[in-house]
Amino acid sequence: MKDESRNPTGSFKDRFCAVAVSKAARAGARTVAVASTGNQGASLAAYAAAAGLGCVVLTLETLPEPLRVAMEIMGAHVVAVPTPADRWKVLREGVEREGWFPVSNYLAPPAGSNYYGIEGYKTIAYEIWEQLGRRAPRAVAVPTCYGDGLYGIWKGFRELKAMGLIEEPPRMIAAEISGWLTRSLEEGKPWEGESAVRSSAAFNLLASRSTWQALAALRESRGEAVQVGEDAILSMQQTLARREGIYGEASGVAALAALGDLARKGQAGEAGEVVAVLTSAGMKDPAATARTLPPLRRAEPTLKAVMGAIP
Amino acid sequence: MKDESRNPTGSFKDRFCAVAVSKAARAGARTVAVASTGNQGASLAAYAAAAGLGCVVLTLETLPEPLRVAMEIMGAHVVAVPTPADRWKVLREGVEREGWFPVSNYLAPPAGSNYYGIEGYKTIAYEIWEQLGRRAPRAVAVPTCYGDGLYGIWKGFRELKAMGLIEEPPRMIAAEISGWLTRSLEEGKPWEGESAVRSSAAFNLLASRSTWQALAALRESRGEAVQVGEDAILSMQQTLARREGIYGEASGVAALAALGDLARKGQAGEAGEVVAVLTSAGMKDPAATARTLPPLRRAEPTLKAVMGAIP
Repeated sequence: MKDESRNPTGSFKDRFCAVAVSKAARAGARTVAVASTGNQGASLAAYAAAAGLGCVVLTLETLPEPLRVAMEIMGAHVVAVPTPADRWKVLREGVEREGWFPVSNYLAPPAGSNYYGIEGYKTIAYEIWEQLGRRAPRAVAVPTCYGDGLYGIWKGFRELKAMGLIEEPPRMIAAEISGWLTRSLEEGKPWEGESAVRSSAAFNLLASRSTWQALAALRESRGEAVQVGEDAILSMQQTLARREGIYGEASGVAALAALGDLARKGQAGEAGEVVAVLTSAGMKDPAATARTLPPLRRAEPTLKAVMGAIP
Repeated sequence: MKDESRNPTGSFKDRFCAVAVSKAARAGARTVAVASTGNQGASLAAYAAAAGLGCVVLTLETLPEPLRVAMEIMGAHVVAVPTPADRWKVLREGVEREGWFPVSNYLAPPAGSNYYGIEGYKTIAYEIWEQLGRRAPRAVAVPTCYGDGLYGIWKGFRELKAMGLIEEPPRMIAAEISGWLTRSLEEGKPWEGESAVRSSAAFNLLASRSTWQALAALRESRGEAVQVGEDAILSMQQTLARREGIYGEASGVAALAALGDLARKGQAGEAGEVVAVLTSAGMKDPAATARTLPPLRRAEPTLKAVMGAIP
């Protein structure tokens, strides 16, 4: 497992924002802006604050409160608009009329995110290579929404190969919840239909369609997509927390859950050494986790009462 | 600033629990237990999970929900009892009758915490020394409740001096909210009166009295205590977040707030190079921060409406 939950704001988006905000500052931008209901907004708020840039986050009412608080205490202007597509529309207007530097997609259909930021994900590939003793694993599994992370990590390994530092890049495994990349691989182009998945504890993986870059990473690496179910994700979140003491966000553990599914189907053996990227810390959306837990237990102040309250 | 908010569970308690849980496992304990409404419980839950030990957290109803969720998803048994003193009473019973390995105080009056765990804080001193190029600062400020961290960090510097690695250990500055250590220094013994501070966003610093070890760290280092007010803490939390992109817990930024107070009084100059320890990340108690922020802004999906919603 490559644990990205310990980055400055607790997600792999810090890799992205470190590069995107540096580029924005260099380009003379005064305001960076993003369409986000989650980790990318919180990460952008932090890097924008450190760089002295203004930050606008276009979001939805469903934004988890801890993430809203983190964004706003760091000085970001957070505004909810009615629908997911509205965020891109307003962001595009802001880019064109106000000179906002965009650090997420703002096109429809989505065309991937800020391409400087995506370069930041390459450092995950470099670190995996370094931490494995200067070699690539056989496969790398990544929780995937529009595929920025999946593509960026793939690009890092591809460049390691181009530099002659590895023999063979890993197969990329996209852990998705919509099933679109699975369809896209079958059809050879991004899938544009409607998803049956409308809500999820792994809400950060809810994509409105798939992208070319995610498909490219899977095709070029002879990889695959695994559609992970809600139960598998919540179960993996608990298993990781109880066995390792690592509390990952539901979206963040999707790659581990996908590998669990592959193992159960007897398909993990072929991959050899596999790295799953844990993309995000759970503390940013405790409400989703709380729904899987009983309410706070209370007891009279005696050992007997406390022991009786413990399952 | 020494940033301890990026430890595995987001607080300096991870230094403590890494050592305390290792000791518990070596001593053959099957269950570790703690009286905590905050970071120590979350940290203990994580290290106990990783070590395969059971974990009991005796807490209060005021426990922030994100911390409860983190503890329980990691397998800890969390039980609220009516009063702060009840936690110590039940913990003592559990230690004596159930063989729980205690990782917090369970005596009245409080006598400091698990002394193996406190050794873990010494690594903060070692790292400050290393990060400053193998020397000690003139002063180190630490957010202080019962003073485990203050004392442990002081002990680390004292031992660096004993090993001949530094000339002079730093003056220790306790950032407190109760005012007890200030009184204790005046009177030369731990202060046992009642505090006027009953609630605070920095609730992790609410101590029911002061301890000998905190007083020892201050006296031996010719240090001082600074009583920090609620406004100074909340203001520093926002300043740190907006300037640096670091969202610290209210309790965690108390040392920075104390240095701000000293600077305003013109007393910071005497100290020379000063390190403030940021002890904890803010994501664990966003509700306290939310009270300082307006509610989520909403706008129709036009740039004009969004710009109008931004202050």
